[in-house]
Amino acid sequence: MVFERGFPDDEFEERTRRCQLLMAERSLAAILVCTEPEVRYFTGFHTPFWQSPTRPWFVIVPAAGKPIAVIPSIGRASMSETWIDDVRTWSSPAPDDDGISLVAECLRSIAGDGPIGVPMGPETHMRMPLRDVDRLRETVGEFVDVTDVISGLRMIKSEREIAKHRHVCGLVSDAFDELPSILSTGMTERQAFAAFRAEILRQGVDDVPYLVGATGPGGIDDIIRQPSDRVIADGDLLIFDTGSTIDGYFSDFDRNFAFTHADRGAEDAYRAVWEATEAALGMLRPGVTTTQVFEAMNAVLKANGSLGNDVGRMGHGLGMQVTEWPSHTASDDTVIRENMVLTLEPGLMWAPGKAMVHEENLVVRADGPELLSRRAAPELPII
Amino acid sequence: MVFERGFPDDEFEERTRRCQLLMAERSLAAILVCTEPEVRYFTGFHTPFWQSPTRPWFVIVPAAGKPIAVIPSIGRASMSETWIDDVRTWSSPAPDDDGISLVAECLRSIAGDGPIGVPMGPETHMRMPLRDVDRLRETVGEFVDVTDVISGLRMIKSEREIAKHRHVCGLVSDAFDELPSILSTGMTERQAFAAFRAEILRQGVDDVPYLVGATGPGGIDDIIRQPSDRVIADGDLLIFDTGSTIDGYFSDFDRNFAFTHADRGAEDAYRAVWEATEAALGMLRPGVTTTQVFEAMNAVLKANGSLGNDVGRMGHGLGMQVTEWPSHTASDDTVIRENMVLTLEPGLMWAPGKAMVHEENLVVRADGPELLSRRAAPELPII
Repeated sequence: MVFERGFPDDEFEERTRRCQLLMAERSLAAILVCTEPEVRYFTGFHTPFWQSPTRPWFVIVPAAGKPIAVIPSIGRASMSETWIDDVRTWSSPAPDDDGISLVAECLRSIAGDGPIGVPMGPETHMRMPLRDVDRLRETVGEFVDVTDVISGLRMIKSEREIAKHRHVCGLVSDAFDELPSILSTGMTERQAFAAFRAEILRQGVDDVPYLVGATGPGGIDDIIRQPSDRVIADGDLLIFDTGSTIDGYFSDFDRNFAFTHADRGAEDAYRAVWEATEAALGMLRPGVTTTQVFEAMNAVLKANGSLGNDVGRMGHGLGMQVTEWPSHTASDDTVIRENMVLTLEPGLMWAPGKAMVHEENLVVRADGPELLSRRAAPELPII
Repeated sequence: MVFERGFPDDEFEERTRRCQLLMAERSLAAILVCTEPEVRYFTGFHTPFWQSPTRPWFVIVPAAGKPIAVIPSIGRASMSETWIDDVRTWSSPAPDDDGISLVAECLRSIAGDGPIGVPMGPETHMRMPLRDVDRLRETVGEFVDVTDVISGLRMIKSEREIAKHRHVCGLVSDAFDELPSILSTGMTERQAFAAFRAEILRQGVDDVPYLVGATGPGGIDDIIRQPSDRVIADGDLLIFDTGSTIDGYFSDFDRNFAFTHADRGAEDAYRAVWEATEAALGMLRPGVTTTQVFEAMNAVLKANGSLGNDVGRMGHGLGMQVTEWPSHTASDDTVIRENMVLTLEPGLMWAPGKAMVHEENLVVRADGPELLSRRAAPELPII
């Protein structure tokens, strides 16, 4: 399959159409979003400029017609190149009124006195000063929570989105395959991180926004750490977990390795998380719930002597963010649907202070999972 | 100078002491923060895990004593390695109560009925669902805005922070110096971006979170763009603007180049932004305001026929984020103080649809600016 950048306009037309169908069911007059993935979802506007916390950005989805962008003038040129026609700008930063009166006026002209939806629930936040959130609510009235509308749309990927995930997962799988030839004992963690980051980029990803990992003698106590100057030695375990991107879509999976040899305990823990993943792959299909997926993995981990874990879930959605709804937890209970892109991430403490986490990426098809990451080896690899 | 990673505990003791002095002046019983730079500022907790939107994280600064971390259990191991003693955790994600009752209980036990400060103003946001912000306010009462406390602390850098900025700015200056040897006409923008990113990493930075740029025949209309498959040709102008990091501290400056030759208009525009920067460097010292700095640059740009610009400011603070308070604008009026780390970023439209922006990084010393980026050439470089 040829990998294509960006999306044709009909991708955004379809996203907007699906959103407006859900809005009609609830008699919503408009939806307001202000975070990077939501703005990108409806417009295609894609820039790392969001890392600057200075300026708020808004997109309004009306009950009918194209979304409207209400943004700082610095974004006018880029936003005007998307499929959006109505781009309203102000000169920002303007601390006394940073787009608030402009977005309020736009909302009221679009929505009249009708209800305005804003995502206010799990995994969302308002990317604007709280003072301005309060001002906006004073002007246009209280919002209706539409977290489920937005998550319901974003959780189901189009084939074009899936192609981006498949491409980046393939490149990162290739980079992981090179690890044995680029890492060795005597390197520091920091050198190992730099070498792996360079290799992932060399394979052709756009960026490596997320790279965590750790090494430790016989095991690892923390999976979200930044590298230290610790020197990798014989008998160490190493975990790398990366979220890399192509065209703004993420991979998110990890791999574990041992240097020269491994303890039986570590080998057994590795086999347990691998088998837990097999269990989930065997039962995952449209109609089962995230909680059933969690239970399938957890049963294997418990049978293998898990002391529990601190992660709080065993995988999640994947998309324009390194983690998205839903979560495989004991109580999440989201019904899994076709074309969700998910991670499976079983983890356990196999001894006090020793964690093992394994992760794969997949897309849910009518007849079960299609792996996007190349399946890890069933036994702990030794470098 | 030897570059040291991390900070000794007395760095965090001093930050906390200064914060508590300001809190005492206002009779604040506690300050609550929930965003990455603020949590890192008070604790040293540093991880890219913040890219996952799933879980909220909280730090409470009491009127006396060390800050308290109230965080998801996945962060327990990493947070326990910082100087923080009191680390309270819950298993997250837990959509029904994702830390809210735990943080409310902690706030009330620390603050009693006393006022609780939260940054609610410019450049801040609450990194948690709006629904949970409202719940928290219902439980512990309305917050007091402490944006000026937090910005006042973070704007003044310690010598240890300045050393990190100096180090990363030096590495990125070295990478920009290599550009003529790694770029050439016939490459696509995407290839040029990848080559430059690899070069910056090769110089030794930890990451390149921010890289934007553009090319265009004789000029550029947009400075926050992502690369396309456009092939670079003779007569093109190119701008690269990168925010790269060492140990979590940013550089943020750009460079402009022309391929094979440049129009007189582009050369004059380049000279104008370079001279505008000279004007700011000549007057910048403790006691002048950001507005005076803006006016010094703007006078030069106007004298050189600027058609205005869409950026909204001509530079900003720099630190753990690629942009921070303050902003050089016509109305910002922040008094510049010793050990602020700032960018100067004059920009103009020199013809319709043709922008030129130039940027340098500096630290403010008692007798004037100390450059952190290596000063750009006074004439537009030709590759």
